[in-house]
Amino acid sequence: MEIQTLTADISLKRQLETGNEMQLQTVRAVIEDVKQQGDEAVKAYTEKWDGFRLEKLRVTQEEIDAAVQAMDEVILQDLREAAANIRRYHEQQSRYGFKLPLEDGSYLAQRILPLTSVGLYVPGGSAAYPSSVLMNVIPAQVAGVERVVIATPCDATGKLPDAVLAAASILDITEIYKMGGAQAIAALAYGTETIQPVDKITGPGNIFVALAKREVFGDVAIDMIAGPSEIAILADETAYADEVAADLLSQAEHDALACAILITTSEQLAQAVATQVEKQLQTLPRESIARQSVERFGRIYIASSMAEAVEAINQLAPEHLEIVTKNAEAVSEQIRHAGAIFLGRYSSEPVGDYFAGTNHVLPTNSTARFASGLNVDDFIKKTSVVYYTEKTWQQNAPKIARLARLEGLEGHARAVESRGWEKE
Amino acid sequence: MEIQTLTADISLKRQLETGNEMQLQTVRAVIEDVKQQGDEAVKAYTEKWDGFRLEKLRVTQEEIDAAVQAMDEVILQDLREAAANIRRYHEQQSRYGFKLPLEDGSYLAQRILPLTSVGLYVPGGSAAYPSSVLMNVIPAQVAGVERVVIATPCDATGKLPDAVLAAASILDITEIYKMGGAQAIAALAYGTETIQPVDKITGPGNIFVALAKREVFGDVAIDMIAGPSEIAILADETAYADEVAADLLSQAEHDALACAILITTSEQLAQAVATQVEKQLQTLPRESIARQSVERFGRIYIASSMAEAVEAINQLAPEHLEIVTKNAEAVSEQIRHAGAIFLGRYSSEPVGDYFAGTNHVLPTNSTARFASGLNVDDFIKKTSVVYYTEKTWQQNAPKIARLARLEGLEGHARAVESRGWEKE
Repeated sequence: MEIQTLTADISLKRQLETGNEMQLQTVRAVIEDVKQQGDEAVKAYTEKWDGFRLEKLRVTQEEIDAAVQAMDEVILQDLREAAANIRRYHEQQSRYGFKLPLEDGSYLAQRILPLTSVGLYVPGGSAAYPSSVLMNVIPAQVAGVERVVIATPCDATGKLPDAVLAAASILDITEIYKMGGAQAIAALAYGTETIQPVDKITGPGNIFVALAKREVFGDVAIDMIAGPSEIAILADETAYADEVAADLLSQAEHDALACAILITTSEQLAQAVATQVEKQLQTLPRESIARQSVERFGRIYIASSMAEAVEAINQLAPEHLEIVTKNAEAVSEQIRHAGAIFLGRYSSEPVGDYFAGTNHVLPTNSTARFASGLNVDDFIKKTSVVYYTEKTWQQNAPKIARLARLEGLEGHARAVESRGWEKE
Repeated sequence: MEIQTLTADISLKRQLETGNEMQLQTVRAVIEDVKQQGDEAVKAYTEKWDGFRLEKLRVTQEEIDAAVQAMDEVILQDLREAAANIRRYHEQQSRYGFKLPLEDGSYLAQRILPLTSVGLYVPGGSAAYPSSVLMNVIPAQVAGVERVVIATPCDATGKLPDAVLAAASILDITEIYKMGGAQAIAALAYGTETIQPVDKITGPGNIFVALAKREVFGDVAIDMIAGPSEIAILADETAYADEVAADLLSQAEHDALACAILITTSEQLAQAVATQVEKQLQTLPRESIARQSVERFGRIYIASSMAEAVEAINQLAPEHLEIVTKNAEAVSEQIRHAGAIFLGRYSSEPVGDYFAGTNHVLPTNSTARFASGLNVDDFIKKTSVVYYTEKTWQQNAPKIARLARLEGLEGHARAVESRGWEKE
């Protein structure tokens, strides 16, 4: 891993895959087909791309039960405990409305309502991601969303991963559809004969899924379109090189475009981590992916002071930030931009990916400057309420009419004044 | 205004203007020019499109002071009172973080931080919109955003409307730039020699502004891209036809694409409102715009029951909803989807546009199903914090490692286990 002196212009921004014109045309055609032909279009694309002809899209209760049965009871218990931790943290994010009384009985209010229905996309492919199920479904449930639906592609035998079905089952999610890609996003957004449309779609996916989410955006809500994962580790001489290296590699193994950065005030640590990264890479099952990530985007920066290091972190606005220094908590108070912060040696980043309770869907590519990880707010909406009595209206109508006329909107002024018009 | 029997399939969705390929190419070229040539590009486009060659982009304190001087003191007082009302309501939306203690000193937390900097776009043209300044700036200030910047195009003599400068001055905003269109959005997003970039851009604009906001989205945050305004009025026989008609027209005068709908259980009211709309249209200064809106999108629906009417409103998910019925508050409790609700006869919709304190930037085109009006949450971000002690790590490391391996991420498992590795 390359070691450099920290400079002011570091960045972790990478050019994201945005899809080409052909992919976009494909996605638009798929969406149109699903709009026109519903279930049959979804089945046809599933046969074409996932290699299986489905009789029905919806997973049966028997399939869910069989998946739970097939799981190791220890793993099921781990998932249940993780789910409880995630629920407990997200319950702290619950929102309540308010009522602001004005004079003489008038009031303003804000109502908080959950979204009615949400669809979660779970990617298929070689691995299963039960943790995605937990991280997307639980905030929606805590928000009070009544209907949470999962869409995920089946394999060439028509099966879904046991772990995904088991995670859904733990959360009492039973509306699960075997469908992936743009056809799944279209079916969730616009509905088919058997699938009611949802109001919001969350969850990661490949470029076709991302393009489809952009296309349906506006008709339904979507979550952010996440880029490859990132970690920045801020460490001083108190950190252990093998642990820092292992944590860097845990991000690097995600994706050849993932980004793992160490910023340290200790030259000795810098050297030791570089050595450890190379050593640990050699036995990593996903060595090839991790090595590409490390070589292209991995860097070790030596900072002249902790203040300079903190400033660099704020410039990076990393998705994940580990602080492994003396007085880590005090250092963390100076961080203005990070998706998630992990404090101290024992808070390795995967602790948050799977188990601690915080969400692992986090803002990437420096968007932590203005965006937040997935949370309960993403599944609620706010409605304002205005109630004016006659007296409050009388006191304020002339002011409101003047402000409307200042903007040239005579109709607005008259509407407010109309309450005083003589009635027939 | 056309009267119809209410049916189950009503909708207020309209095809929004999305811009054509030529407009998009123009916007991309402008953005690239501003990135490359900074201030000079902004000045050149301002000269080309707004007809004035600026020496400097930033408004001077003298210009702001002169604008305040030029304003009628009564109007200034109205603006100040509106600002105070808006601030009071939005202060109720203030957010606080939390700390969730786990066993033996471990904890999870959520930190709430304001965005660092925000740019507000205020459209130019024939009218001035000081209310836009109040509605966009105040939630950002309540959130704690340190730097709030305004961009708005000057007229052909290089001047800005007094009312906009005065509204800014009331809010202590002094960083104001004379620039509009895509060049303004680009300068806010990427910065120039004299303008520091911002983290989020809000505010309405024409199609070039909307396209530019879409283009810079991801590098900075943007607010929703609002469609034409809408109102639905739910009224029974207790409502006054002239007031209902005036309120419908107050939306219709905004835009030929605006949508004003009455749903009523009273056939008599329906007839009377139709008559009143035509009568009031004839003396409305913006008659032509309002008439186009009424003819294309205005409808009066007669519902057979209040329950049916409520169901229709929930299907519409209107931006603005007035409820002028017996027991309006009880009726409103059944509304699941609306941007803002106005209760009772004296809560005419313009009350909220200008003065009451709620925000007038609201979700249009049925997006109230999943979106909210502009609020303090739009100017904050959340960072999660995980702190595990050695003991908590020890208890949970095996579980976390199992979950990581279940997903095929060995590097994640090793990272968590590395804390137990023997040290050299």
